[in-house]
Amino acid sequence: MRIALAQLNPTIGALEQNLKKVKEYYQAGLEREADLVVFTELALPGYPPRDLLNYKGFLDKERSLITEELMPLTAKTGVPILIGANHRQGNRLYNAALLLENGAIKSTQLKTLLPYFDVFDETRYYTACQDRKIEMLGDIPTAVTVCEDIWNDMEYFSDPLYDIDPLEGLFAQGARLLINLSASPYHYGKHTLREDMLPYLAKKYNTAVIYLNQVGANDELVFDGSSLVYNNRGELLYRAPIDKEELFIVETEDLFKPASKIVSPDRDDIETIKQILEIGTRDYLSKTGFSKAVLGLSGGIDSAVVAALAAEALGPEKVLGILMPSPYSSRHSIEDALELAENLGISYRTIRIDEPFDTFINLLNKGEGPIMDLAEENLQARLRGLILMQVSNREGYLALVTGNKSELAVGYSTLYGDMAGGLAILADVRKMMVYDLAHHINDLHGKKVIPERVITKAPSAELRPDQKDEDSLPPYSLLDPILELYLEKNCSPSEIVAEGYDEETVKQVVRMVDVSEYKRRQAAAGLRITSNAFGVGRRMPMARGFEYF
Amino acid sequence: MRIALAQLNPTIGALEQNLKKVKEYYQAGLEREADLVVFTELALPGYPPRDLLNYKGFLDKERSLITEELMPLTAKTGVPILIGANHRQGNRLYNAALLLENGAIKSTQLKTLLPYFDVFDETRYYTACQDRKIEMLGDIPTAVTVCEDIWNDMEYFSDPLYDIDPLEGLFAQGARLLINLSASPYHYGKHTLREDMLPYLAKKYNTAVIYLNQVGANDELVFDGSSLVYNNRGELLYRAPIDKEELFIVETEDLFKPASKIVSPDRDDIETIKQILEIGTRDYLSKTGFSKAVLGLSGGIDSAVVAALAAEALGPEKVLGILMPSPYSSRHSIEDALELAENLGISYRTIRIDEPFDTFINLLNKGEGPIMDLAEENLQARLRGLILMQVSNREGYLALVTGNKSELAVGYSTLYGDMAGGLAILADVRKMMVYDLAHHINDLHGKKVIPERVITKAPSAELRPDQKDEDSLPPYSLLDPILELYLEKNCSPSEIVAEGYDEETVKQVVRMVDVSEYKRRQAAAGLRITSNAFGVGRRMPMARGFEYF
Repeated sequence: MRIALAQLNPTIGALEQNLKKVKEYYQAGLEREADLVVFTELALPGYPPRDLLNYKGFLDKERSLITEELMPLTAKTGVPILIGANHRQGNRLYNAALLLENGAIKSTQLKTLLPYFDVFDETRYYTACQDRKIEMLGDIPTAVTVCEDIWNDMEYFSDPLYDIDPLEGLFAQGARLLINLSASPYHYGKHTLREDMLPYLAKKYNTAVIYLNQVGANDELVFDGSSLVYNNRGELLYRAPIDKEELFIVETEDLFKPASKIVSPDRDDIETIKQILEIGTRDYLSKTGFSKAVLGLSGGIDSAVVAALAAEALGPEKVLGILMPSPYSSRHSIEDALELAENLGISYRTIRIDEPFDTFINLLNKGEGPIMDLAEENLQARLRGLILMQVSNREGYLALVTGNKSELAVGYSTLYGDMAGGLAILADVRKMMVYDLAHHINDLHGKKVIPERVITKAPSAELRPDQKDEDSLPPYSLLDPILELYLEKNCSPSEIVAEGYDEETVKQVVRMVDVSEYKRRQAAAGLRITSNAFGVGRRMPMARGFEYF
Repeated sequence: MRIALAQLNPTIGALEQNLKKVKEYYQAGLEREADLVVFTELALPGYPPRDLLNYKGFLDKERSLITEELMPLTAKTGVPILIGANHRQGNRLYNAALLLENGAIKSTQLKTLLPYFDVFDETRYYTACQDRKIEMLGDIPTAVTVCEDIWNDMEYFSDPLYDIDPLEGLFAQGARLLINLSASPYHYGKHTLREDMLPYLAKKYNTAVIYLNQVGANDELVFDGSSLVYNNRGELLYRAPIDKEELFIVETEDLFKPASKIVSPDRDDIETIKQILEIGTRDYLSKTGFSKAVLGLSGGIDSAVVAALAAEALGPEKVLGILMPSPYSSRHSIEDALELAENLGISYRTIRIDEPFDTFINLLNKGEGPIMDLAEENLQARLRGLILMQVSNREGYLALVTGNKSELAVGYSTLYGDMAGGLAILADVRKMMVYDLAHHINDLHGKKVIPERVITKAPSAELRPDQKDEDSLPPYSLLDPILELYLEKNCSPSEIVAEGYDEETVKQVVRMVDVSEYKRRQAAAGLRITSNAFGVGRRMPMARGFEYF
């Protein structure tokens, strides 16, 4: 049997547009003489549709496109479609895989494990399947599963999240092939995990494995494609691209014999992160109707890395950097920002904020001149935010936020100032990893497109004379691991101290994180690269007590 | 038996502070010779603790306060405590009611129905109880339940959300008293519903009902107290205040005989909304450490109502209004704003934005003067936002956002401009209800504290000459019902048209709502008064297709 698999990049909620793509790839499958064409989880709504699922009219439209457009195709051609779709039974909604064949729904496989943690809300919408059965695809008994259903092996995972493993029952029924329709967003380590766990399953059950993943980004989530095919020895036969739509073919006879050529495994590294951030940037702009981006260039490392990533993702001609020096900006920062813009080939403008700053100081300080308080630091940041938004609103650029995760975590940032913009590319990238990205970008270019001094100088917001980040924060080399423990590992402050960190520093950091929740509540969407990013996946109260625990 | 019930206002996450309060009220219960003292759902963490529940250290601390502080009290006094608490069994977490007696946990009642819709995420954290049993309180067989567990009567509700009704089993076991530990946030209609459903249960099961609710606000949620006591005839014996902590006593012998005096039922009205908004304002400030608030006074109705509510909630001396006229501000707006401030007795300042506006126009338009585009309208709003934030940051005021739900829905607002601030009091109040509030406030004062002209003039943002809201939007009397259907009833656009609304208008409104999701993503927290507010309860993708369905 010849199976065509479509790794697609849907736009959330664009049912008709996604249908058009599904039909094109179905046609391409037919041209390649496929006996079956497979699509990902919730292929027409795109994943995650979130509260669109609360609209019965939306679900009705999805279903009518399936019955009126896709089912007739399978009648006409005789080639079935396996597709992820919403499926209602009475008042209950299921996340399902539908097998469309000869103009009808031949069978329905329902998702059993509904992720409810982190960015996932599936229990908000779906009922879990209680009854799993294998599917005959041609003459191959197949475990057709949806995403999470393969991620709960009781031996592989030391701490499985769910009480049941749907695979146990399916393989007890004699499945020889595992097909998984996924929409699985990236976080660091996922490639490594996936390419370790899937061959484990292949060997454990003596099954071939076809893992089909969504590709492309939706809001903060980047779906990393990289669909995979293993034979029943656990040998990797194929990996689809991380960042592109693709139709690929699997001959089932190849799945049950030794590989003629084994694809080497993939491991997450800094290049993976870079790719994910670029996909996220590209798709957020294209799916919100923007083609160009503007950002402030401070001469610091965060804006340098954001500019470099945006230039790579969108093309340098689509990126505008704006230098907005104040009286407190250093000469070297301006030089470095200009050199960066030249190196990247992006366009740039300089709009000094001295005049509006003076105007406001006159207005607000009653002619007394600056008093150099925190409010005036915020004022400078907000004047810059205002200029970026003016350019954004008037000229149609999306404003990129340049702050990193470490800053966002401890609130070392100004609401409506440097936090202003539509997308925060580095919102889940801790400062030390921003340095790694900078080095990696320069390595890839074979030259210092990010000027050396940008990387080596001490980080500074330059909002008052001789200011350094370390005046207000622990050094990033200490801050970042504490943040990782508190934010990504859910360690309590006392557990972090038990790891060997100074108690006062831990208390300081945790308190800074907790009291700046209100800023993050109003932050731009950030691209998720860890298992615990800010945004939809971390839900913390703002008005709360701050007690040590 | 004499039961003392504590309707308390916890601060989320403030375990020790909440414990202190629990102990005080326990002591007060002892002084009133109670045989049992009862506290609400998750009394020590406060509800909802959200992702604090992902911190094992947080749960450990809660439990240790129960075992080390509360349990010994019950040993010492002989008076048991019934309290809502987190309860771990192995890897599973339950939302539970613990009966502490003689220094031990005598019994544990686990929550069965875990709300997962709207603002609720309980399936994210909790496992559902599978096994319910009645509790002997003195000699009364009692159904001890937690919040949602009483809200799924299969006869009362035409479309019950869950498959099971825990009450059926509990009353089959012979319960004669129903005690419900709640933390149930307000939305419009809830008083009416509650005081209809609870006596229904009393009569259906011939049971007395004690409904104990949390009071006070946490972020966007306002818990409306109003704890209730019914005898087994469904006669209302007592209602606790909507806005205050209170310990009240129930003599169980009164529960099983005709009421000597029946309390008349409460129905939601505009006064309820006003109270809820004031509680939400007062608590958000106090729980985030603010005592005073600043807002922009435009002379329009939204800022007038916000100022009046804030003055009532915080005291007029704690409210600062700032008039920030531009060249496009009308004379009557300035007069009306001044009159309002005088009427309310709040302090005010005038800071014109002409100068900073001119400075920016010079800087950005290269000396050409205003070009009167949308970006310049946003610029004016942002200059005002910047001034408010400067006063907020420098002087310690919380900035209040004055926009209403209708504006926020259709994106008729400026990010970082009029949307800047920490709390949006009217974010869930549609424009037509803002008028109702204005009339109601004037009625309560017995005079026009909100000047008549503020109410009668056509709404305008005054960002260009002769601008009217209706130049850009349908009239609010048409817009608001469409918004209600789309946002609060989850009607699809085609269903709204089927209700008799013009198709082009519906499409325009729905599109405006959908494309401004990115603004709401960065909006301040808003107080929830409907069953479907923006904020944590409505989770919509930003990058998405906008297709008619």
